Amino acid sequence: MSLLVEKTSSGREYKVKDISQADFGRLEIELAEVEMPGLMACRAEFGPSQPFKGAKITGSLHMTIQTAVLIETLTALGAEVRWCSCNIFSTQDHAAAAIARDSASVFAWKGETLQEYWWCTERALDWGPGGGPDLIVDDGGDATLLIHEGVKAEEEYAKTGKLPDPSSTDNAEFQIVLTIIRDGLKADPMKYHKMKDRLVGVSEETTTGVKRLYQMQAAGTLLFPAINVNDSVTKSKFDNLYGCRHSLPDGLMRATDVMIAGKVAVVCGYGDVGKGCAAALKQAGARVIVTEIDPICALQALMEGIPVLTLEDVVTDADILVTTTGNKDIIMVDHMRKMKNNAIVCNIGHFDNEIDMHGLETFPGVKRITIKPQTDRWVFPDTNRGIIVLAEGRLMNLGCATGHPSFVMSCSFTNQVIAQLELWKEKGTGKYEKKVYVLPKHLDEKVAALHLGKLGAKLTKLTPEQAAYISVPVEGPYKPAHYRY
Amino acid sequence: MSLLVEKTSSGREYKVKDISQADFGRLEIELAEVEMPGLMACRAEFGPSQPFKGAKITGSLHMTIQTAVLIETLTALGAEVRWCSCNIFSTQDHAAAAIARDSASVFAWKGETLQEYWWCTERALDWGPGGGPDLIVDDGGDATLLIHEGVKAEEEYAKTGKLPDPSSTDNAEFQIVLTIIRDGLKADPMKYHKMKDRLVGVSEETTTGVKRLYQMQAAGTLLFPAINVNDSVTKSKFDNLYGCRHSLPDGLMRATDVMIAGKVAVVCGYGDVGKGCAAALKQAGARVIVTEIDPICALQALMEGIPVLTLEDVVTDADILVTTTGNKDIIMVDHMRKMKNNAIVCNIGHFDNEIDMHGLETFPGVKRITIKPQTDRWVFPDTNRGIIVLAEGRLMNLGCATGHPSFVMSCSFTNQVIAQLELWKEKGTGKYEKKVYVLPKHLDEKVAALHLGKLGAKLTKLTPEQAAYISVPVEGPYKPAHYRY
Amino acid sequence: MSLLVEKTSSGREYKVKDISQADFGRLEIELAEVEMPGLMACRAEFGPSQPFKGAKITGSLHMTIQTAVLIETLTALGAEVRWCSCNIFSTQDHAAAAIARDSASVFAWKGETLQEYWWCTERALDWGPGGGPDLIVDDGGDATLLIHEGVKAEEEYAKTGKLPDPSSTDNAEFQIVLTIIRDGLKADPMKYHKMKDRLVGVSEETTTGVKRLYQMQAAGTLLFPAINVNDSVTKSKFDNLYGCRHSLPDGLMRATDVMIAGKVAVVCGYGDVGKGCAAALKQAGARVIVTEIDPICALQALMEGIPVLTLEDVVTDADILVTTTGNKDIIMVDHMRKMKNNAIVCNIGHFDNEIDMHGLETFPGVKRITIKPQTDRWVFPDTNRGIIVLAEGRLMNLGCATGHPSFVMSCSFTNQVIAQLELWKEKGTGKYEKKVYVLPKHLDEKVAALHLGKLGAKLTKLTPEQAAYISVPVEGPYKPAHYRY
Amino acid sequence: MSLLVEKTSSGREYKVKDISQADFGRLEIELAEVEMPGLMACRAEFGPSQPFKGAKITGSLHMTIQTAVLIETLTALGAEVRWCSCNIFSTQDHAAAAIARDSASVFAWKGETLQEYWWCTERALDWGPGGGPDLIVDDGGDATLLIHEGVKAEEEYAKTGKLPDPSSTDNAEFQIVLTIIRDGLKADPMKYHKMKDRLVGVSEETTTGVKRLYQMQAAGTLLFPAINVNDSVTKSKFDNLYGCRHSLPDGLMRATDVMIAGKVAVVCGYGDVGKGCAAALKQAGARVIVTEIDPICALQALMEGIPVLTLEDVVTDADILVTTTGNKDIIMVDHMRKMKNNAIVCNIGHFDNEIDMHGLETFPGVKRITIKPQTDRWVFPDTNRGIIVLAEGRLMNLGCATGHPSFVMSCSFTNQVIAQLELWKEKGTGKYEKKVYVLPKHLDEKVAALHLGKLGAKLTKLTPEQAAYISVPVEGPYKPAHYRY
Repeated sequence: MSLLVEKTSSGREYKVKDISQADFGRLEIELAEVEMPGLMACRAEFGPSQPFKGAKITGSLHMTIQTAVLIETLTALGAEVRWCSCNIFSTQDHAAAAIARDSASVFAWKGETLQEYWWCTERALDWGPGGGPDLIVDDGGDATLLIHEGVKAEEEYAKTGKLPDPSSTDNAEFQIVLTIIRDGLKADPMKYHKMKDRLVGVSEETTTGVKRLYQMQAAGTLLFPAINVNDSVTKSKFDNLYGCRHSLPDGLMRATDVMIAGKVAVVCGYGDVGKGCAAALKQAGARVIVTEIDPICALQALMEGIPVLTLEDVVTDADILVTTTGNKDIIMVDHMRKMKNNAIVCNIGHFDNEIDMHGLETFPGVKRITIKPQTDRWVFPDTNRGIIVLAEGRLMNLGCATGHPSFVMSCSFTNQVIAQLELWKEKGTGKYEKKVYVLPKHLDEKVAALHLGKLGAKLTKLTPEQAAYISVPVEGPYKPAHYRY
Repeated sequence: MSLLVEKTSSGREYKVKDISQADFGRLEIELAEVEMPGLMACRAEFGPSQPFKGAKITGSLHMTIQTAVLIETLTALGAEVRWCSCNIFSTQDHAAAAIARDSASVFAWKGETLQEYWWCTERALDWGPGGGPDLIVDDGGDATLLIHEGVKAEEEYAKTGKLPDPSSTDNAEFQIVLTIIRDGLKADPMKYHKMKDRLVGVSEETTTGVKRLYQMQAAGTLLFPAINVNDSVTKSKFDNLYGCRHSLPDGLMRATDVMIAGKVAVVCGYGDVGKGCAAALKQAGARVIVTEIDPICALQALMEGIPVLTLEDVVTDADILVTTTGNKDIIMVDHMRKMKNNAIVCNIGHFDNEIDMHGLETFPGVKRITIKPQTDRWVFPDTNRGIIVLAEGRLMNLGCATGHPSFVMSCSFTNQVIAQLELWKEKGTGKYEKKVYVLPKHLDEKVAALHLGKLGAKLTKLTPEQAAYISVPVEGPYKPAHYRY
Repeated sequence: MSLLVEKTSSGREYKVKDISQADFGRLEIELAEVEMPGLMACRAEFGPSQPFKGAKITGSLHMTIQTAVLIETLTALGAEVRWCSCNIFSTQDHAAAAIARDSASVFAWKGETLQEYWWCTERALDWGPGGGPDLIVDDGGDATLLIHEGVKAEEEYAKTGKLPDPSSTDNAEFQIVLTIIRDGLKADPMKYHKMKDRLVGVSEETTTGVKRLYQMQAAGTLLFPAINVNDSVTKSKFDNLYGCRHSLPDGLMRATDVMIAGKVAVVCGYGDVGKGCAAALKQAGARVIVTEIDPICALQALMEGIPVLTLEDVVTDADILVTTTGNKDIIMVDHMRKMKNNAIVCNIGHFDNEIDMHGLETFPGVKRITIKPQTDRWVFPDTNRGIIVLAEGRLMNLGCATGHPSFVMSCSFTNQVIAQLELWKEKGTGKYEKKVYVLPKHLDEKVAALHLGKLGAKLTKLTPEQAAYISVPVEGPYKPAHYRY
Repeated sequence: MSLLVEKTSSGREYKVKDISQADFGRLEIELAEVEMPGLMACRAEFGPSQPFKGAKITGSLHMTIQTAVLIETLTALGAEVRWCSCNIFSTQDHAAAAIARDSASVFAWKGETLQEYWWCTERALDWGPGGGPDLIVDDGGDATLLIHEGVKAEEEYAKTGKLPDPSSTDNAEFQIVLTIIRDGLKADPMKYHKMKDRLVGVSEETTTGVKRLYQMQAAGTLLFPAINVNDSVTKSKFDNLYGCRHSLPDGLMRATDVMIAGKVAVVCGYGDVGKGCAAALKQAGARVIVTEIDPICALQALMEGIPVLTLEDVVTDADILVTTTGNKDIIMVDHMRKMKNNAIVCNIGHFDNEIDMHGLETFPGVKRITIKPQTDRWVFPDTNRGIIVLAEGRLMNLGCATGHPSFVMSCSFTNQVIAQLELWKEKGTGKYEKKVYVLPKHLDEKVAALHLGKLGAKLTKLTPEQAAYISVPVEGPYKPAHYRY
């Protein structure tokens, strides 16, 4: 691959679609700032003391307008930043341009190939000879994955002299990862070791990425401390739920203009993301059906008047199908063949393996008609019925629309900033081991509090007597750790 | 103005943005056909007998994908068609291109100037020396208006020799209308008389256009029969209500990406359009407030948990303001000056005079910052607060998004087709005088029935005993004329 | 039947369950007055001029607390009143007691037999030798029916000397009606003629009663003017819709305590009543299915995400079934046999023939287990499954709960008062012929306006320019007659 | 107090309102069994092995129809049971009668005095000379409290010879508790020691009771193991949320018949209970306002379109006010004085100290008018405005209606049964120390699973590959402990 890094006049590296969109990006960033009170409060509170002075931060997170406000919050607090997107379709090119021009090194554009994607990830992690970043802001865990796989390969190489072999795997994407690591190994057999040695920690914000981290913790292979930002209440119960409630219909409308009212919509999975999707579809007048493996979530759906059935029960009736499970192999090509003509199939979970895109692409005689970017109609040869697949099975809200709106992302990203501050403040103190941590409740409550004023809310204050009666401090935190909200 | 009409290889006239988008338009038209069962049923039922054979139809109606399916239904039934949009921002250029290339003469593009707009309208009405069209499909009544004003001017000219004087009016748009008529008069002093003599009738589909027709009927100045399609139940209680419930948030999201949840949203007017908008905003998590003049509509809002206040009461608290009244001078520049920074102001009523754009544009020192087409931030010099105005005060769902979705437009447009068929069938029979008519209820019920199968519905059949008990025919119509649904 | 009329110390006749409940009734009447601003405004506006001075009014309308406020509004305006209920289960005995003691002659108690019911109706119509009432307030039309049947029988008797023969009909209730008329005829062969001659008119407030009136108007048999109060917007779009949305779940809960969330609920009919019921059930977390004959109402249900199927499709799945059609023979005993164990079957339409109670009662071997009054479990012998029938198939919201709440009844009853005032004012002027009339829109809007203050609403005022622009008076009425709200 | 215990013919003790209501109670119990699949599944699974053989269980939990099904599940599994209610108004007398006659010793009736209440509690704990019960089923913790206070007093007495002094406290209820303990001490100075020594443990199901238990655990004063059933997901996220969504409007309607639509409703607290209440009021058409101390819960309300304000901001506008906080001193008499005439004030939190009943009762010149039991109007002398207080400030859904419906209580009570089984099975094994435990997730999921079939749900099964991919067993549990649902 022969991608060329460009440089700003000040020498900052970048690779974006069109740097001339920076002005447009700047205008939308300014609008977003008004909608992101948590991040702006961080700038006001911490900016003067420059707590990130000297910190190099790499981010792997959808390069949107909202992320631009996050990045410029990190730089406002003193950090130096390099960034890539964590999804090939999720970059907003004007946001990337504005950041590249004004604030940080960005390697991201809408519509990357998988090879370009991993090239960008590597660029974002490459801080030159001194090793990698001090801190990682991760979404889905790809930056973390690359380092872990790199270290593993370097260890194998040190022991056996064996280079990683891309042909050892069927997974096309993992072949690319191994190729990158292999090529890196040849240049510097300690590249990823240096990175992990330098790394103070990572903060991760998705259910999917967090799952990976807990798996590594359980296996004893986690190489640096991690803060699980996803399970802050102000993240998972807001971004995942209310964010998707907003951006799922947005993606559907932009991609297909289809009327949601009256349609049969199947939501696979009724976790926070599924709850948000189901609520949006129901409110828009669809008849929603949920599929679930977990009896508790299933019973929640039922209490909201939503039937719980299996995909097999409903696949021939559905007009719209959305996967939200975080699992793999949810909608298979055999399901797709049975669907109504022009049934819409899309995914809003982190990874694209919820929908069997491979099965679809390789189905004998299947015909792909691209209506417009990220909206394809796939026609089966035998039935001549087509289905409409959004964003090639990737996150449809980011691929077909602009992702979650600023306000809810301000909650998530304020957690990210606080987590990064905490990791950086405690570097060298030993407070954080190679484990996965969640933020303490008082910080979670603080994030929420920073977002109330914008919406005109006024909190009630406990009297000392009331606080004593329910055994909490007057200033909070107000709930036990196990409270579910 | 020196706009040039282009021609297809077959000699059909058109003027669109980019004829090369025709393939893209065709793909979306094909998707829309699946969502428009009423129109497709008309093609199946009436196509073989070619009832419009010999009919020249002019349409003045948003040139969208859905309208493309309407146009091709008219041509499939034998009509020859010329078309313009009824709003400077509402054309979807790929739809216009596909129709221009394949089916009918189109004069429309997204972002016309007002002068271009009326040039397009005149082109659509110009069928050459034989006079104008046989039938008009109207939306908002601009085509009808032009003919009425033309006839009036010709009469004045015949009587007094006086040409219309554009400088006699302050209204910038009406100046253009008068100019066009004046120039036409010079070429042919009977141009509009020939048009009205040939015209069999018009079918009109908006509340606004229908109001104009009833005013002319009351004044005795209506020049040809009119069918009020707007007040078919399957139009006003579906398109106006459920169409807006869909397309208002769509427009907001595409234009601003703003999070609706948590915001204070003011909906001016609680008619069918206002009800749809309020429902959508409420379901998305906004706190909705309604302003109303009509105590009955106000009481309806209250029963849905929506407070009814005056704009003055809420103007400083609102985050989103939408006008839906069909009246003028609803949100004035003095209101806008008091609004929060980045309050969003938009209109979903037919005309752009609900919002005081003139007052805003001429406010001393005001600064306009175009974020992107149809999304402007206007900053007041004294407060430095800006407001965000969508689609320059015009229909925001068509200006910032793609208008109502296909399924609900299929209901409206099937009424249009039926109305056109009725007018054409009864030409010369004297059944329709120079008055405004609504379609009979059995046709209204038929339109609904054509849309049930697509959504999997099954109707219950009355037994003869039951039908007798409630005094209706077994096959309907089932309700008295005054029934409100 | 040997029922004895009782008398108050002042000589007013009555027959109620327990006059000692008058104090309790009075307390609830006082609470209701605060919730019925329309009626209280009528007292304030019209009380001083005593417009009903000399008027004798008979009412046949559910004798509830809300009706008590209506009655005392009529008497506050100068009327003399006699009252019966229009349903054997709908009387609130404490309301009846308070009115009987304090204000008017009442013949009503909860749990009348059908014979008692018609005895009460006759008592309410009997104003002594001078003939019947001047005015009738009717609900369902039973008082109107009795007079029409009476006159018909007297004419037959005058012509042929033949007395009505109760055994000529299968209908048990109609046998009672004929018996009453026969017995009356023997005493006074002109009794009902005198009544109709005296009668100035009737105002009727139900869909069912109005249907009867239009049928009589069409047949030319209507004996006196009638005002259709049901089709005031402030009646049918409020009482029928929002009243049922409130009182359907109320009736279900009081009768069965069943959890609505998660259940499959079938609503037969999607008119105003059905819309209210479906909304309530959906909001409470049920999965709602609608049955409909009318494609327009069916399409409305679909747009709200409610599937439309036939009863046969869903009868084995349903947990709760409600009839709202105004038609007969909706849920038959053969449906009931197929239902789940403990399926709940109830009716909220005016008459009890929507549910095949006769078929159920006479089903061989069926066993009735009365859980509590108005809640019966009927067990089929072959399956041993039982179904739960509410209020013996009669209006379940009045039979099992207390009917619609005061506020919405204030809208309906203010229309009744205005209609009665209008009829009385125009007696002798010939303005009203023997036809059915609706109230003019400005009075409809007035009723709404009287209810806004209580809910804190503020209306916007049209400027004269705005009023002219939309061609309405500044003070209203604001909508054309055909407007559907 | 001279209450007399009665005995059945078989010698079982009881004290209920009217044993003759047992047949009515039995009929409703049989209906409830069909709605409580979790409890019936426990009978089927565990009944044959009689796991509670020899266990004496005391319950202090609202003596309703649903509780009757719980009690008879415990007895079906072999237990001997004594029962009292945990609220003076919550007993359903026919339920108490049926259980007393058929299954267990019951001491409970609707409308106990506080003295009677504690007499009943003591009776339920008194198993004769052998000490108290083996197990306690607690709701709110009063049975647990009595034993803890008893033991404390006995220790003090043993040390100092000092008897508890009721006059040492202002709290009227606690005076009664001390009196009972004092009288018990005189009879047997080791009575409560014997109880705690015998006790295997308690299972507690309310937020309030659980809070007390954690406080005792933290203070090291907890005398026996406790299982926190409240924080099973299938309890707190169902009973608290969906139960209240059902029973709050039920209580309002039965107590006041007030129309909820259009009203301003204030919900104090937005925990699970507050969420359920707010949802119900909003769906019924009220304008809901929430008060909160916790910024996270506040932000949740805002995302649902519900404003968050302080009680002071809204107290003069509110029509309906509900406390759900679990804290004390929420609505004070000074708030009540400022309210609108006939504002409705009620509590659905466990204890009655959320509303300042003491302040109200002792307000100089205040006048109490009892509309009907549990519905009082309190009139302030200066303003002559009255407010309507439900259930004297106690749990209004149990005081004014029948509490939560069977289906959702089946979830809660199945957790209770499982907790009791676990405690009893592990007695003597040392597995449970004097601490508070929650049930393991697989049991929580099992409770949910037992309730799916009744609602027609079908779960999706993980493939082994999918289970491995998300690192869970195929059969569950599916979520980490911190998952919030």
